[in-house]
Amino acid sequence: MKIIDKMISARSSGQPFYSFEYFPPKTEAGLTNLYARLERMAQYEPLFVDITWGAGGSTADQTLGIAKTIQGYFGVDVMMHLTCTNMPKAQLEQALDEAYQGGIRNILALRGDPPHGQGDWEAEEGGFSYGHELTAHIRKRFGDEVGIAVGGYPEGHSEAPSRSQDILYLKQKVDAGADFIITQLFYDIDEFARFVKECRAQGIDCPIIPGMLPITNVDRFLRFTGFCNTKVPERLRRDLEPIRHDDQKVQAYGIAHMVEMCRDLMDLGVDGFHFYTLNLETSVLAILHQLGLAEERRVRRTLPWRPSTLPDRSQEMVRPIFWSNRPKSYTARTAGWDDFPNGRWGDAQSPAFGDLNEYYLIRQGLGVMAKKEDLVSSLGEPASEEEVFSIFKGYCEGRVKRLPWCEQELQPETEQIAPKLSMLNQHGFLTINSQPQVSGVSASDPLVGWGDPRGVVYQKAYIEFFVRESLLKELIEELKKEPSITYQAVNRKGRVLTNASPQMVNAVTWGVFPDQEIIQPTIVDAQVFMIWKDEAFDLWERDWVLRYPESSPARSVLGRMCQEYYLVNLVENDFLKGDIFKAFERCLIKKRPRKAGASSVELRG
Amino acid sequence: MKIIDKMISARSSGQPFYSFEYFPPKTEAGLTNLYARLERMAQYEPLFVDITWGAGGSTADQTLGIAKTIQGYFGVDVMMHLTCTNMPKAQLEQALDEAYQGGIRNILALRGDPPHGQGDWEAEEGGFSYGHELTAHIRKRFGDEVGIAVGGYPEGHSEAPSRSQDILYLKQKVDAGADFIITQLFYDIDEFARFVKECRAQGIDCPIIPGMLPITNVDRFLRFTGFCNTKVPERLRRDLEPIRHDDQKVQAYGIAHMVEMCRDLMDLGVDGFHFYTLNLETSVLAILHQLGLAEERRVRRTLPWRPSTLPDRSQEMVRPIFWSNRPKSYTARTAGWDDFPNGRWGDAQSPAFGDLNEYYLIRQGLGVMAKKEDLVSSLGEPASEEEVFSIFKGYCEGRVKRLPWCEQELQPETEQIAPKLSMLNQHGFLTINSQPQVSGVSASDPLVGWGDPRGVVYQKAYIEFFVRESLLKELIEELKKEPSITYQAVNRKGRVLTNASPQMVNAVTWGVFPDQEIIQPTIVDAQVFMIWKDEAFDLWERDWVLRYPESSPARSVLGRMCQEYYLVNLVENDFLKGDIFKAFERCLIKKRPRKAGASSVELRG
Repeated sequence: MKIIDKMISARSSGQPFYSFEYFPPKTEAGLTNLYARLERMAQYEPLFVDITWGAGGSTADQTLGIAKTIQGYFGVDVMMHLTCTNMPKAQLEQALDEAYQGGIRNILALRGDPPHGQGDWEAEEGGFSYGHELTAHIRKRFGDEVGIAVGGYPEGHSEAPSRSQDILYLKQKVDAGADFIITQLFYDIDEFARFVKECRAQGIDCPIIPGMLPITNVDRFLRFTGFCNTKVPERLRRDLEPIRHDDQKVQAYGIAHMVEMCRDLMDLGVDGFHFYTLNLETSVLAILHQLGLAEERRVRRTLPWRPSTLPDRSQEMVRPIFWSNRPKSYTARTAGWDDFPNGRWGDAQSPAFGDLNEYYLIRQGLGVMAKKEDLVSSLGEPASEEEVFSIFKGYCEGRVKRLPWCEQELQPETEQIAPKLSMLNQHGFLTINSQPQVSGVSASDPLVGWGDPRGVVYQKAYIEFFVRESLLKELIEELKKEPSITYQAVNRKGRVLTNASPQMVNAVTWGVFPDQEIIQPTIVDAQVFMIWKDEAFDLWERDWVLRYPESSPARSVLGRMCQEYYLVNLVENDFLKGDIFKAFERCLIKKRPRKAGASSVELRG
Repeated sequence: MKIIDKMISARSSGQPFYSFEYFPPKTEAGLTNLYARLERMAQYEPLFVDITWGAGGSTADQTLGIAKTIQGYFGVDVMMHLTCTNMPKAQLEQALDEAYQGGIRNILALRGDPPHGQGDWEAEEGGFSYGHELTAHIRKRFGDEVGIAVGGYPEGHSEAPSRSQDILYLKQKVDAGADFIITQLFYDIDEFARFVKECRAQGIDCPIIPGMLPITNVDRFLRFTGFCNTKVPERLRRDLEPIRHDDQKVQAYGIAHMVEMCRDLMDLGVDGFHFYTLNLETSVLAILHQLGLAEERRVRRTLPWRPSTLPDRSQEMVRPIFWSNRPKSYTARTAGWDDFPNGRWGDAQSPAFGDLNEYYLIRQGLGVMAKKEDLVSSLGEPASEEEVFSIFKGYCEGRVKRLPWCEQELQPETEQIAPKLSMLNQHGFLTINSQPQVSGVSASDPLVGWGDPRGVVYQKAYIEFFVRESLLKELIEELKKEPSITYQAVNRKGRVLTNASPQMVNAVTWGVFPDQEIIQPTIVDAQVFMIWKDEAFDLWERDWVLRYPESSPARSVLGRMCQEYYLVNLVENDFLKGDIFKAFERCLIKKRPRKAGASSVELRG
């Protein structure tokens, strides 16, 4: 989606917006870290993120790759920087093509600085020399389909002959088709205010978003401000001087200072901020929290899962629950669909999932494949089934951060049932996905709410787990007394035990909103479960079993479990009065008759 | 849908089924009565209804027309009789074509009796002489797309050389492709049991449905049994003799007798009954009630509105609420759609409604146009607005049976809010459609339930009414204090007052069921309301104003109202705690300050 459109709608909601800028890391480890950080920061729903384009195109391919990955798999809109410095026209066209194909619809058009050490430079043969030429070219080529931003210099560009001439250059860029302006960093608010005033006087009437760089390190701060010719107010210099060698104090000061600066800007009427993150997250998120913007924003999920921002997925409104902890895998495996279900899942024209090998290729490209050492060190080397149980239990209790099936930590909404899940895992029901029962809770609820806050949301309780056959059969015996629960169990070889129709499509999350149709974003589809099952057992093997040496006890015990265990999902259809844990409870009580002093298997509350 | 498939699914549910047979009436008034009766009887959800084919094709065109109308507009599957007696092959093919085009997918294939007075007869040139030939022909022509039933004679066909020969003829018909057998009437259960046994012995293994004719009049009973050579048990004769001239007693006896007969048949394993209604309803419905089949059946609405049984509408699952009292008009005006919304209304590809003139043509064909005298005599000749108010009030109170906008009486579910509606009408809010608020009520509820009885249903409160501009404005003032209520008002000239988005599509009825997606069968669509508004004002004029002489006071007052009043709809989005009547209440209290002894306008409770 074009950022200018999101900006207009954010403005009409009266909620200040913000965006985050990153640069392409230099190492692969750096890239993996950036993606993990971006995943966390995306939860704060920035209006967009942007990726810088290396000076003289030095990181061009990398910028393009990262921008496409984020646009495709992180559910956040990307603005890609593009500079015309030293870029032959053909290469530039190719970059634009590739970005467009990858779903990117926003470009920050820059002239760019010459690469270090090249001093004076000239335009490439047939290339562009100025930002306004690049802007005009993009606008001409894509019309209204692509959003364009340009850079503004509150204190004048270092190469500009005069401040007023600089504003005229900016006017040229806006007239050439730019939607809005992002400014260079500044620390003097009066300079920004004057700049805006001068722009308006010259007839520049598009949004002007201030670029903010929180101070985290004094040397870096001075280097940047020096490089950009940025005025540093005397008070700032004075405040920083005594703490300049204490990075922690500088960071804390930088946060407080930026909060004050943002407040002052809001008093001037500014309603959006662009943060130069330098690939760091602490300061920026602290600033948002202190401004009171972050909390409220996190709550406002439009759907229970973060929607894709790819243009052809914009109507997607239903997903199977199985991939809720693996949204990137789902997005990758459904990338080939030409139509996404947007009312009911049942309307989907027999969707075909990309096969697993294809997905692993994409995953490798994503850089989300956990390193062998990472996983082994975090999950340990279990030598018995009981030790495996402890690992799953540890995940429910927050001691283990990641399981092969879960790209992220336990969701906040699941924490309410975490003690019960923990008990289940201890006894061999190895949970990998679940959601609590929710009946008529306000859509503004911080844990389970989503969509228009005036609405009401509902969930059927859901649990998905691995379990050994004998215990499964005991559970199924108990489930006979719970007619409102539907279960599906299948082992790696495809043996099925179920009380569900093979055609079942069961909505397990839905919301009722004023003046809207019912939205049902999460479903349990009996047929799709069989597709997910292959991925789940494959993850068990590839991401876990095979990480241990061939003759190790861990490889042996995990390998056996992967072959023999069943993957099971349970839905409690009675979302008003049902209790999905009752059958487990009876099953465990029956299994282990209480002795004096024995620990209770009571799962309730 | 093919009846044999419905039969199989009814059998698996363990619920006995039944069907009703009618004959084409001889007069137009008779036809209008038949449709009204059929509308009432269709509420009992017969598995199918069937229309006889006049002997020798004497009522052929009429049978075809009636069968198509019922299939198209009454939401019940039709089995059309077809006889080959005296039917040239071309005429027969044309009848089959036309029936198929009209959505009919079930044929009762009969040889038929010769027309009265023709005695012996021969097959038409190129025509068929036997039921099995007609059966084979239909099967060959339509394959599995059409269901076929044939007739069976428990006591042997009057022309058959022997009982066993008769069974062989029947076997021939079944082998030719019939799905099931409906028997001729009988009163001796032993004869039926013996017949079924003989059929099974000959390898006839399809369903055999007993044909039941309740006794309503002794002379008619004797004529039928005589004509069909039906054995009348001695006890029956004896019981009827003393009461034969008292039709009321005969009818009561006939009901009790048939209930007993059905029970005996059920003891033999029979699970479905075919009733020869002779176009009468009292006896058949009384029998169903006494058997305990009717009550339960009426509750089991699959959707809040009766779905169409036309093959191309089989996926239709969402309709605008505006036509809920005029389902035939809706079906007619959407007959040209090539795709019906089945998940969300919003998915519909910008549906186009047939225009009003087209609809009036169809309506005339349907014979549902009320006679001028009927309406004037039932609605009276109001000489003032207050007298008009009384008519609307009378409809809410059951004194007036029909309004121009309401094809049927007030729905049972609306009766809970009838006193409040009655009060609104008295004060000039002239309601024509409404539904009460429902929050989490069992789908098995007799008043508001529908769908799988294990589910839970919901409704947003809805009211639609005509009102004068000044009163509307007072109401809108009060509605400002009720942010959860959405309203749309429009007068005949198209002047709009609303707080709704013009794109609003608001689900006002939905259900949550085990192992299913959410079903949302009724919506309020802001754009479609403008289409309905034209129909609503047109009905006011054509069906009411123009029925009075040109210079009459009724014509003058109703004509003025039609020009000046607004049509308004209100949705209370807060289905948990909202009260759609509150604003009306405040509006009326404010309008008419209470005096000692003045009647209260308190609408609650």
